[in-house]
Order: sequence, then structure tokens, then C-alpha cells
Amino acid sequence: MKLRDFAREIGLSPTTVSRALSGYPEVNEATRTRVMEEAARLGYRPNINAVRLATGRAGAIGVVMTKASDYQFSEFMSGMAERLSGEDIDILITPMTEHDTSDELQLYRRLAESRRVDAVVIHSPRPRDPRIALLHQLKLPFIVHGRSEIDVPHAWLDIDNEGAVRQSTEHLLDLGHRRIALLNGREGLTFTLHRLAGYKAALAQHGIDFDPKLVTHGDFTDEIGFRFACSALDERARATAFVAGSMMTALGVYRAARSKNLVIGQDISVIAHDDVFPYLTAENMVPALSTTRSSIRAAGTRIADLVLEMLTGREPSDIRELWPIELMLRETSCPVPKEKAE
Amino acid sequence: MKLRDFAREIGLSPTTVSRALSGYPEVNEATRTRVMEEAARLGYRPNINAVRLATGRAGAIGVVMTKASDYQFSEFMSGMAERLSGEDIDILITPMTEHDTSDELQLYRRLAESRRVDAVVIHSPRPRDPRIALLHQLKLPFIVHGRSEIDVPHAWLDIDNEGAVRQSTEHLLDLGHRRIALLNGREGLTFTLHRLAGYKAALAQHGIDFDPKLVTHGDFTDEIGFRFACSALDERARATAFVAGSMMTALGVYRAARSKNLVIGQDISVIAHDDVFPYLTAENMVPALSTTRSSIRAAGTRIADLVLEMLTGREPSDIRELWPIELMLRETSCPVPKEKAE
Repeated sequence: MKLRDFAREIGLSPTTVSRALSGYPEVNEATRTRVMEEAARLGYRPNINAVRLATGRAGAIGVVMTKASDYQFSEFMSGMAERLSGEDIDILITPMTEHDTSDELQLYRRLAESRRVDAVVIHSPRPRDPRIALLHQLKLPFIVHGRSEIDVPHAWLDIDNEGAVRQSTEHLLDLGHRRIALLNGREGLTFTLHRLAGYKAALAQHGIDFDPKLVTHGDFTDEIGFRFACSALDERARATAFVAGSMMTALGVYRAARSKNLVIGQDISVIAHDDVFPYLTAENMVPALSTTRSSIRAAGTRIADLVLEMLTGREPSDIRELWPIELMLRETSCPVPKEKAE
Repeated sequence: MKLRDFAREIGLSPTTVSRALSGYPEVNEATRTRVMEEAARLGYRPNINAVRLATGRAGAIGVVMTKASDYQFSEFMSGMAERLSGEDIDILITPMTEHDTSDELQLYRRLAESRRVDAVVIHSPRPRDPRIALLHQLKLPFIVHGRSEIDVPHAWLDIDNEGAVRQSTEHLLDLGHRRIALLNGREGLTFTLHRLAGYKAALAQHGIDFDPKLVTHGDFTDEIGFRFACSALDERARATAFVAGSMMTALGVYRAARSKNLVIGQDISVIAHDDVFPYLTAENMVPALSTTRSSIRAAGTRIADLVLEMLTGREPSDIRELWPIELMLRETSCPVPKEKAE
């Protein structure tokens, strides 16, 4: 049965039927209920193209995939997919391999022109992110995963990166650690700046001077974790604790400790940020890893949810979700060894 | 400048211009060169929609994302993105969270109807995969990442999973191991069956009986690696070697060995399959992990390449690429300890 026939059968316009079935706010609840009951009774299954033609919707949410997209990206996408499955909404990935900002803006411009997406998700924002200004100007709905400081009203969802690292650092300071190394994200990104701010705030509260040599920036790989931990453990005034940006960097720190015959949870402490991957769990590491924990998959699911809300009329500037983060203490956060205490 | 104006300016039809700029074989080289030179000279930048309208192309390759999609999926997608960036071709991800085959077929049917993709990539095929028969019937171009045994002509790219596991197992047998455990993929998938066949072939050649207790199936997580390795190491006739399906399962085996105070590379051996993730490298593990190595990112890049070739006229049934796999011996494959040799 075609949309037109079904609409005629129940005495409504095809547009009203499409909107009712797509959950648009222009159609009142009573009409929507009736349309859905009639669709079930008559066995009408909407044709996606007909609905899209009638509603003017593309039926896809856009994501630009950069070269830096990694295992976190995949978890986030799985979370989005979980929410979008059954909604007749796809995810359109636009590939971009170079880190050229002007190219990326051009991609967003063409995505908006092409009308192939109803909204986009922006990842890894910077404090003054030109993508936000551009999308606002193009009137393409969008949500930022992370935060910016730009003076343009927009929807965002972020975890409290500053609070997470402040908590980890404070806890290690309370345990007597004074040489705490921070394995931070890529420079220039807002979340990296927030984590650094949390680290500095904790140090300041304990009257400890900030030592830039104890901080490194980069992608979250075990290689970077290993190299930086090795060098931090080789210093004369060596680090006694590490705040690791991810599970992968924590693996690198574990490896570095083993290569120097140091026992984690005794000689050195580690607290990592855990995005909750199904294939690598903090509880299972030996020793069990203390973490600040927040599921990036859940963030993906919630972002998809918020996009759907925006598409049915919720004001983007009303959408600001900051997720608090809990510190999960396990076996790798312990008092500083006596001989190294100040 | 619009397509129509540009075409008029250089005295060609809009369709010819679009095809020339999209690299279609219908346009000869001389014309293509001329169109591109004129476009550069006149500063014409094609509008993606106009080109698509003229060529009838959707400008996207479809991928159905299941709940089982994981860190390997993200690497594969990055590889595809690398090839597609700059080609004006996107990747359309259709979410499917349930493992219901009939639902999945329905998704492909609607993807074909909607004309939103020019081709699709099928992942994790089974020996008689109904998706292949369906897409062939729907005449939607597709390529299979992996292999099926279905009697329908189709394009595929796969790595030699059987050869990889046969090599690993043979090498361990040559080192004197007789109790070799296999951490295999999910049951029913072709690659899982191929790996099992390689394992059995190696055992048969050495006249060793197959013991189903030494084989487990499941997703490639450190948890499954840990649990299975623990139980295989607890057996009276315990395993002395492991063929691990991925880097993550290998991490689980490392952990299990440490928890039982066994030294990998002395007390037990491990050879894993390595998809070459940028964030976790076999060379860097302690001890350095012996692997069968094949970049899943490179497979993604090559699949994107092959899709582009199909779209410009290459016969799908001509596309059959089987990538051989090399065994990289490092520190975790060693002779069976004396007291445990038979």
C-alpha cells in the first residue's frame, strides 16, 4: 500500500500522515494515535522515500570522520546506533583525512548544501571552534560532543573532564604523592584544557608548584603512555603517580612500570580515565585499575536522543548536559612509598 | 558558477561535464582533461547535488552497523575514509542493534529502495549468507569483507584466516607443544570456520587428535581471553600454548598467565592475530607478542578502492582478493617446557 492510498483510505493528507508517523510536533496526539492504529489495522508500512519527500527530512545525522578518529569513535557510534535503530535514521559519515581546518569547514558547508543530513554531531571541539559559528550561520542543526567557549547558542553534551582530573589528582595528593604525572589529550582541544585546569587546581589547593615536565600531550595510545612513563620514571625526582588519559595510556604505564621492575599499587600509583570499552575493563587489569569512569557509548546514545529532540522542536540552546564523573578506587591508587615521601 | 553555466561556457552538455568530473568511463580521456583544465581556469567548483542529479549517483557507500561492531569496525572505517576523502563519497551507516537476520535483510531492502547509496559493504559473512543473495537480486552493487560459500557471483576481499591459524598452530607444534588452545571468533561466521579448519589441519598433519575443550568461541575481548585461559591453565592436562584471535584476547591471556604466576615466553606460548591497531602494538607488549599480522585499516582502504572500481564499470565477479598473512615471531613463541613435553 502506498502512502497516498493509505492517506486517502483514512481521510488525511499524505503530509499529515507522514508527519504523524515521524513524530513531528505539528500533528496532535489524537491524530498521531489514530494514524498509527489505522496503519497497524490496514498493514500499512511507510515507504521511507515517500515519508522523506513529504516531510522534507533527509533521515540521517552527519558526522565528519577525521584521521584522529579511533576506538573511542567506534564506541560512540555504537551508542548512537543503539538509539537510532528502528528510527529510520542513518548516520552519514563524511571522511576527512587531513587536519586542515579550512577543508573541514568546506565539508560542513557542502553537507549543509546537499541536504543529505538533518543535523550533525561535532566532535573534539576547541575553545573557539569555527565549525560552531559556521553551522549556526548555515542553520544546520547540530550538537557538540564536548564544549566550546564560543558566543553562539548551541546544544552540547560533555563529561566533567576538569572535575575528573581534579578528583584523581587530589586523591593522589591526599595519599602523599607530590610528583604526579599527567598524560593529557591532544593540545588545543577543550577537553585537554579542562583536564589541565583540573590538574592545576588540585595542585594549587595543596600548594604544589606546577611542573610542565610532568605533563605530556598526545593521542591516547599505549606507545605514548609507555614512553612518557619511562622517561618520568627515569628522572632523578621521579614521578610516583600517573593520571592517565585513557585505558590505552594506562596499559603503556603498566608496561613501563614492569620494564623498570616497579610494582603498580606499591611503588607507583595510577588513576586512568575509563570510557568503558566492552573489550578492556579496568576491574580486570592486574592490579585492578582505579579510574574516573564515564561510558562514551552512553554519551553517543544520549546525543542521538538529543538530536531527535532537536528535530522535533526542542530549542538547541536549552540543551546543555554536563555529566559528573565518579572516582572508582581499586588497587592502583595507594600511599606514596615512604622513602619517596617529602 | 553553476554547472549549467560552466557547461555552456565550454560547449559541452551538463551530463558530460558531470561524468567527466566524476571519472566515469563513458567520457574519454581527452574530454576529461579538457573539462578539468577549463574548471581550473574558470574557477568552477562542482555543486555536489547538481553532479549527483546529472549522474544519478547517491555519492555514498552503505554499511550496516550491528551491535557486534567494535574496535575493528572503527579501524576498517578509518581505512575506507582514507580512500574516500577527496572523492565526494560518504559512508552511510545504517544502525541495527538486534541480531535478527530478517530485520537486517529488511534494512538492506530499504537501503536499495531509497537509492541513498551506490554500493554497500557486507561484514562478517556466513557461509550461506542471505544478504549476498538479496543484494544480488536487488541489483545493488556490493562487496563482501570476508568470504561466503554462496553460489552467487560477487566481489570479495578477505585475509587468509585459515592459513594464518594453520601457520601459528604448526609453528607451536614444531616447538613441541601438544596442548594448544584456540580462542576463536563468534560461531557460524566464515572466518571463524576458516580459522578452525586451519587449526584442525595443522593438528591432523602432526597426528594430534582434536580436543574440542581446547577451543572457545566469542567476541574478541580481554575478558573472554582471561576466563578461557584461566580455565585452560587449570586443567590437569593444561594448555601450554594459545592461538589468540586478537590483540585484546591476547591481553586476557597475558593477564591469566600473570595471575597464575606463569611466565609467557617460558612457561606458556602465545601467538595472536594482529589487526594492527595504532594504539596497541604487538612489538611493545612485554614480552613482545608473536603474531599473524594484517592491517584491517588497509583492508578498508582497499575495499573502498574496489567499490570505486565497481562503480566505474569493473565486473564484481572479477574482484576476489585473498590476502596472505605473514607469521611474525617475537618473544612469546618458545619451545614447550621440558617437564610438560610428551
